[in-house]
Amino acid sequence: MKKYDVPEGFRFLGKNIGIKEGKKDFAIAISDNICSAAALFTKNSLCGVSIPIGKDNINDGKLQAVVVTSGIANVATGSQGTQNTKRILNALSKQFNINHNDIVPSSTGVIGPQLPIDLIEKSIGEISMDELSSGNIENFVEAIMTTDTKKKIISRKVGDAVILAVCKGSGMIEPNMATMLVYLFTDAIIDSNELHEIILDGANKTLNMMSIDTDTSTSDTLVAMSTNKYSVDKMVFKKEVHNILKDLTMMIAKDGEGASKLIEVNVRGAQTFQQAKIVAKAIVNSPLVKTAVYGKDPNWGRVIMAIGKVADENIHIDNITIGYGDIDIYNCGEVYDKVEDIRKYLYDCEECIINVDLGIGKEHATVWGCDLTEEYVRINGSYTS
Amino acid sequence: MKKYDVPEGFRFLGKNIGIKEGKKDFAIAISDNICSAAALFTKNSLCGVSIPIGKDNINDGKLQAVVVTSGIANVATGSQGTQNTKRILNALSKQFNINHNDIVPSSTGVIGPQLPIDLIEKSIGEISMDELSSGNIENFVEAIMTTDTKKKIISRKVGDAVILAVCKGSGMIEPNMATMLVYLFTDAIIDSNELHEIILDGANKTLNMMSIDTDTSTSDTLVAMSTNKYSVDKMVFKKEVHNILKDLTMMIAKDGEGASKLIEVNVRGAQTFQQAKIVAKAIVNSPLVKTAVYGKDPNWGRVIMAIGKVADENIHIDNITIGYGDIDIYNCGEVYDKVEDIRKYLYDCEECIINVDLGIGKEHATVWGCDLTEEYVRINGSYTS
Repeated sequence: MKKYDVPEGFRFLGKNIGIKEGKKDFAIAISDNICSAAALFTKNSLCGVSIPIGKDNINDGKLQAVVVTSGIANVATGSQGTQNTKRILNALSKQFNINHNDIVPSSTGVIGPQLPIDLIEKSIGEISMDELSSGNIENFVEAIMTTDTKKKIISRKVGDAVILAVCKGSGMIEPNMATMLVYLFTDAIIDSNELHEIILDGANKTLNMMSIDTDTSTSDTLVAMSTNKYSVDKMVFKKEVHNILKDLTMMIAKDGEGASKLIEVNVRGAQTFQQAKIVAKAIVNSPLVKTAVYGKDPNWGRVIMAIGKVADENIHIDNITIGYGDIDIYNCGEVYDKVEDIRKYLYDCEECIINVDLGIGKEHATVWGCDLTEEYVRINGSYTS
Repeated sequence: MKKYDVPEGFRFLGKNIGIKEGKKDFAIAISDNICSAAALFTKNSLCGVSIPIGKDNINDGKLQAVVVTSGIANVATGSQGTQNTKRILNALSKQFNINHNDIVPSSTGVIGPQLPIDLIEKSIGEISMDELSSGNIENFVEAIMTTDTKKKIISRKVGDAVILAVCKGSGMIEPNMATMLVYLFTDAIIDSNELHEIILDGANKTLNMMSIDTDTSTSDTLVAMSTNKYSVDKMVFKKEVHNILKDLTMMIAKDGEGASKLIEVNVRGAQTFQQAKIVAKAIVNSPLVKTAVYGKDPNWGRVIMAIGKVADENIHIDNITIGYGDIDIYNCGEVYDKVEDIRKYLYDCEECIINVDLGIGKEHATVWGCDLTEEYVRINGSYTS
């Protein structure tokens, strides 16, 4: 049974070339023709060497390939790091007869070490085009994963066109502008400017509203590429891209490092979207809220604390309501006797939904994150050891 | 052997009155005469009901007592919560013949529930002045503790005068203005305006430079009171208050919930103090930096990531140097082969010192925090359960 559709004109590869021991660590996606394309990159200002190269190469709105190495981030590696990424692009260019300017490179993993560039160059020289196929998408996804525990692949049809999206990411995640590595492949007829607008708007409402651990990666990249085969209703296309990015966001949050539950925070009744977002992020990022959700502890007072630490003077405790799922617990100064209901909700729910109404306006924001568990500490206490 | 001095004119009490099961939960400190006094309070805008009452009562620069209940924070408790705190002050006023306006109250613990006010009133009515003594300071400290594992008491002599300071705090700690519950008792001759200036300046350089978990308590309070017995050199007095607050800061950070190590981050070479502070806080608050220190993982690249997520355009990766203790690892683009030295340092050190030089100016900032362990998650996953 096929779980997803693949748009026309793309081939994928994912394999081990020796950066990691025994796990896939190298991925490429190549299109048959030059694609219209758009991309978003991390706002972390000490970003990986791939980022400025990717920005240069997307500048003309055209791409034919993406390449990912995982295991080493190629960050803080100086001019040697930049040379190494350029050598990867040149090797791909030679091997597959594509322009090195039509490739967006990404590297993910440990910050500091240099890539084993001789090994990578040699491996690229040994890959034949026959190894690449449209059916290889799962290998592609496996090869870009680091601490992810689940493969993240989604496709949607828009008329005859297909949108296929894959991503990785489960730690060092509070994306700023784009998130982690996200690749969106399509065969819809769409130019690069339209594509850029659509992914920018979509990312701002989905990926950028997520935080696993408040840490912004140095390598976040979102690339969208289209082989331009089928005409589509642009409004429907835009809506589906938004839906896909929202689904990916929830998949990333749910698969957050060590996470046992996704947390969704809805803040309503705000004066502005920005006010709602600041409050929602403060709640979803609070280690005390996160550990309470993990421990099934109905300690809703920590939501009050988290709001208070970022609240401006318009937000008042007597206007606020707080609820978990369908259960109201605090309403404008009154506390309902619902602590045991919330405890039961926390035991039963797979996704913990926290609702806040600030009671002073009509704007709202939704953010996603996950709980904080001992496993997060274990994973990150021994990442390079 | 006496471990600390107590200034003249103060009596203390710490006992269980039934808010917590079996543990001390009620503390009072009373001076023989009206003190000159100053106080700082949390900037969390959804603060506890004690905070506005304390602000009113400190307004005239005079105090005769402080009272603390622990176990319940009296936050988000509406007008009934306010009435309850006023009933505590009135009961103390009646029992000990002091003006209710000369008392700063604090409550610490769970947000949401009401205090068992009838029980508290009855208990206060049964306390005789004989139960209070200058030797009872350790009981006072025990009674204000929540998840603290160590009593935090310091004293210093300034000429004939004594400064005695006590505090509590190990979670929900990224103080904004004041921190947790800190009480500073002295018999130095000093007026309330001078005292206010001294504690404000001291707190800004010490307590406000600390973060355990990025969460700002709703109840933070620092109170300083003097019985005005001995004249002192004001510069020496100010310096000693600063030293005391710095020592308390390090004691709080070291005793952070679940912490195995204190982390000190020094950021030098910044253009402004504010720039240095923002970078230092980003490092000490990064869950990935904190878990790496806990896991003795020499993953210094996470320091780069943390700087990058808050860095402005003046901060460039080729100007930065990074070191742990005395070991340099990254110097303006060059990576030293010191990973095993850092691993050894992390195994051996009790206090992990991370040094960053931004290489663009002459300002610096130091912040304190602690590592993130499974124990933090365990403590906070079951706080009220």
